[in-house]
This record gives sequence, structure tokens and C-alpha cells, in this order.
Amino acid sequence: MIEKFYNYKLSEKKIINNFLKKLNFKKTGTFNFENDAAYLNISKNNKIVVTTDTIIENIDFFPKDPPESIAQKIICVNLSDISAMGAVPKAYTLNLSINSKINDVWLKKFTDRLSKLQKKYNIYLLGGDISYSKEISLTMTCFGEAKLKNIISQKNCYLGDDVWVTGNLGNSYLGYLAFKNTKINIEKKYIKSFKNKYLFPEPCMFGSKAYRYINSAIDISDGFYGDLSKILNGKFGASIDTKLLPLRSEVKKILDENSSIIKLNDILSWGDDYELIFTAFKKNRKKLINFSKKHKFKISLVGFILKKPGIFNDSMKRIKNISSFDHFF
Amino acid sequence: MIEKFYNYKLSEKKIINNFLKKLNFKKTGTFNFENDAAYLNISKNNKIVVTTDTIIENIDFFPKDPPESIAQKIICVNLSDISAMGAVPKAYTLNLSINSKINDVWLKKFTDRLSKLQKKYNIYLLGGDISYSKEISLTMTCFGEAKLKNIISQKNCYLGDDVWVTGNLGNSYLGYLAFKNTKINIEKKYIKSFKNKYLFPEPCMFGSKAYRYINSAIDISDGFYGDLSKILNGKFGASIDTKLLPLRSEVKKILDENSSIIKLNDILSWGDDYELIFTAFKKNRKKLINFSKKHKFKISLVGFILKKPGIFNDSMKRIKNISSFDHFF
Repeated sequence: MIEKFYNYKLSEKKIINNFLKKLNFKKTGTFNFENDAAYLNISKNNKIVVTTDTIIENIDFFPKDPPESIAQKIICVNLSDISAMGAVPKAYTLNLSINSKINDVWLKKFTDRLSKLQKKYNIYLLGGDISYSKEISLTMTCFGEAKLKNIISQKNCYLGDDVWVTGNLGNSYLGYLAFKNTKINIEKKYIKSFKNKYLFPEPCMFGSKAYRYINSAIDISDGFYGDLSKILNGKFGASIDTKLLPLRSEVKKILDENSSIIKLNDILSWGDDYELIFTAFKKNRKKLINFSKKHKFKISLVGFILKKPGIFNDSMKRIKNISSFDHFF
Repeated sequence: MIEKFYNYKLSEKKIINNFLKKLNFKKTGTFNFENDAAYLNISKNNKIVVTTDTIIENIDFFPKDPPESIAQKIICVNLSDISAMGAVPKAYTLNLSINSKINDVWLKKFTDRLSKLQKKYNIYLLGGDISYSKEISLTMTCFGEAKLKNIISQKNCYLGDDVWVTGNLGNSYLGYLAFKNTKINIEKKYIKSFKNKYLFPEPCMFGSKAYRYINSAIDISDGFYGDLSKILNGKFGASIDTKLLPLRSEVKKILDENSSIIKLNDILSWGDDYELIFTAFKKNRKKLINFSKKHKFKISLVGFILKKPGIFNDSMKRIKNISSFDHFF
């Protein structure tokens, strides 16, 4: 997320609630548009999970960004939604709206990176559409497979569930700050790795593998707090031990050394890490740890689900008031 | 099709052949991108047919077009591809890239028309994405169901097959000319119906029903000759009796009265009627006629497939040289 037009007079929420919701015909699998993905309700037990995202120049990327970065972003935003649903990605369609800024060299780099990522995530391109437009815009629609019983919903957490996070948080945000040339002091040797995390995000595919141990999950695209609150859905609260939040030691050091400019809360309000937040029964704790070790995923237990709505620290002080609104749109 | 940037230095053909084809990993169901749709190769016998189209302001529609027309166009272009594949449409996703020209009134009209069309074609909205952009752009990705044995390919015609066309040709083109205020003389009482055909195209869903009698099919989006040549695929020819091409009597009259301005060939080179061309074994002729009567579709037998590549009239005079290139892009 580089920038979003949240102040636009017709908010997403209004468009979805006032105009689009009537179009789901209350069908199973659409989750009334309250998930980041949906499933095609076709065969009884085996479902096709579908997600789609459009990225547009100057909003989600800059035209001068490396084509490899744009390829990686469009794949990442879609695959992390598929993973959060507990599905295994299979194929995708791609709609390219391009203009004369796009040349052979751009296309070669872009599609070579797509090819590399396809091999990594075992997906293929099914087809798509090419249009010529003023603005560059890319739409990817991604298809995953899941058995109905394995599909994870965002809104299926239970009282007492453990709250987990995958990977590390904040790398993409520091990369963004490094590009912005803020006054923040980052040691030169780390700058490149943060910038790379921002330019080349990687989806966390833990949900595609560990679905059987997970009750609810979401990929972090709007920040840890914002996405956690979507899981809580106004019905539950969470106690989060912020000391347990997974930050690389370099990130902790930067936070310490730049405390007047950057706070932990800034990191936790930023998306683009594409890690997953998920909740699971306490009884699955050991299984999850073993499973994550075996499959080489970093996961961190950071809190638990409680009855009182809101997000609290481990002393039960309210961290933040957050409204919850999420949708497959 | 209002306008296409065919002269853009990177042609669709080049982009697809040089950069995109490598991404289908030669998977079954992609048809090497040589169809207007593809299928997800998931369960052994039951396939999900997928097609997707992006429409952009000033290219595929004008921002001042009625919102109902834009809704109808995006549904039509997708459903007619699903029908041409012999699949039954089921659901779709919608990516809206909108700007401040789009207000509540627009959205109400647009989504009310979508709702009406959803009921008509028995489909529902699965989810999608909303973005804010300079140009209005809509992407619809549509999902249909088909048994593998019923899927119709564009490129599966046989020597001696009958060539059929559904509905009537030319109505959309005359609507377009009526909007353009050309010198063409159209009786006032017909103008509205032609304009409506242009603004509110309807997909022909004959392929979704009659798949068992059909060998190859395509929806007419690039004109009768252009789309027929995609079926022929450089391997076969077709003899077409142009007198048998289905034209409303008013259209015939207009052609007669304006012969210096408009020719049959102009009509046959124009898309946007969204009728189907299909080929079928001669032995299915009677079955097709009965089936079409029962299900209230107009179909016309207009020619047959022959060995010599090209499109010929019934005196075997070559009608046109047409290169064949089609793709799910």
C-alpha cells in the first residue's frame, strides 16, 4: 500500500454495503463479501478458492519501479489471500492494461519474474486480457484448491484461541521509509535488505499447509492491528504481548535509536509484510511448533483471544480502538 | 469494440507469443492461450471454465454511456465466451477501478442492471476489488461449469462440418452508425432498436445448452469473417452462402438503400453482435434445428467447412484473405 484514497467521497464500505452486497445473492462461498477471498460452490467437498486484486500505477506501485517488483507484488497480494483461506494455489489469470511506457525489456523482466514465481509456488497462467490504457493497471485473479472442511475463514476465532504471527514484521515499512529518505537513521548495511523487502514482498504460504491446525487467518495487508481487528470482528478481543511480536534485531535497534521519529505502533499499522495472523486452539500449540519447524516457517505466539472486544496489551491496557471492516473487494 | 490500438508498437500477438506463452507451462486447459477462455484442470471430469475481460473508458465505452449499458457490455463479453466453450455460467468476480465521475446514481443504475442480468443468466457475484484510478476500468472474470467431454474448443472443426450462425448480424453495427450520425439513411422507427442493440448487447447462450451437437464455436466479437477464420485456424476453409447470412429485413433494406455508403462486408467485419458461429456434423442438422426451436434460439445454416484454406462464397470465389490469430488475452 503506497497510498489509498480513503477520503474519496464514496468509501469502499459504502459502495460494498449499498450497491454490491445485493449481488452476492446470499450464496454460500461468498461469505457475504466479508473475507478477502471466496470459494466457488461447485463440487460438494472440493472448492475452488478465488481471490482477485487490481494494482494501479501511482497507487500501488510507481511506473519506474522494477518490473520484477510489480510482478512480485501482484503475485504476493493474491497468494497470501489464498494461503489465509487454507487453500493451495493452482493457477491465475492476468489482465494487463498497458501503455507506451511498457516496452520489450519491461515485459521480458516482468514475465521472467512471473515465471520464476510460478515455479516457486507451483502455479501457472491460465489466460487473461491485454488492453491499452492511459494508466498501467494489472488485475490478477488467483485460483486455489481446498477441501471444504479445510477452508479457513477470517471470522472463525474462538474464545481462548492462541494468536500467532508468521515471519517478521516491519521490514517492508522500513524499506518504504528508506526509499522516502526520511531522517530515520538506518545502518547502511541493512538498507538494501529493507528496500528489497518492500520491493519484493513474499507471501507466507503457511496457511496452505497448516490449515488443519488453524481456526481463523488473515494476511497482513492493512497492518497488524487493523487485520487482527478483522479477525475479532467486533465480537472478541485480543490480548497481545507486544514484546513477543516478531521483529528482527536490526528493527528493534532502529526503533530504539529513532524513538522520536518511529514507534512500534507505526510498524504495526503498516501492511505489505504479507505475513499471516492466525488463531488456533491452545491444544494445537505443540503441533503448530513442530509443523512450522518441519516446514521451515517462523511462527510466533503473541497473545490470545478474550471476550472483551478490543486489542489490549498484556496488562489489559487498551492498545487501540479499531473499527473492523473487511471484504472481498 | 469502439476503437482498438492496433497500431500500438507492441501488438497483442507479439506480447502473447514473445512473453506470455511461456507462462502457461503447457498445461492442459490453457489451450496454449489459443481460445477465448480456458479451463481449470481440477477434477477429472468436471471443469471450471474461466474467461476474463477488461473494459476501459474511451476504448470500450464512453464515460457518459448509460451505466446500464456498461453493465450489459461487461456481462455480455464474458458470458458469450463461456457459452462458446459449451459451459454453463455460474459466478463472476468484478474489479472496479473508478474515479469521481462515478457517483451513487451511477452505481445504483449499474448494479441494478447487474442484478437483473444475474437473475436472467443465473449467476452471482463472488467478490472482487475496488480501486480508485484516473480512468474508469472494469474487469470481470467469469466462471462456468462444464463436463470435460462437453467443452467446445474454437479449433475443433471437421472437414464437411456445417457452419451455423445464431441470431441476426449487423444490428449493433447499424446502432453504432446511428450514433455516429453518418449519412446513412435509417428509417426513424428503427433507429432506437439499432441503438439499443449497440448499447445493450445480449450474449447468445446457445453454446451452454447445445454443446452436445457442436464441434467448434466462437462468439462474434471481431466480426463474422474474422471470427470464422479463427475457427478455420489456417487449416481449413469455409464456403459461405452470403444470401443465407441472417439479417433482419430492415437491415437488408438499409443495405439496398445505402449501397454507396455501407456494404455487407462492413457488417461482416464488425463485432459486438455477440452471436455465435459454430460448426457441427451434417448428421446433427435436424437435431440442431429441433433443439433450437424448442429452446427458442434462431440459428441459420450458412455454409460448410472445406479443405482449401480461406473463406469463399458459394461460387468458390475467395471472399477475403484473413489471418487467423486468437487467444485468451
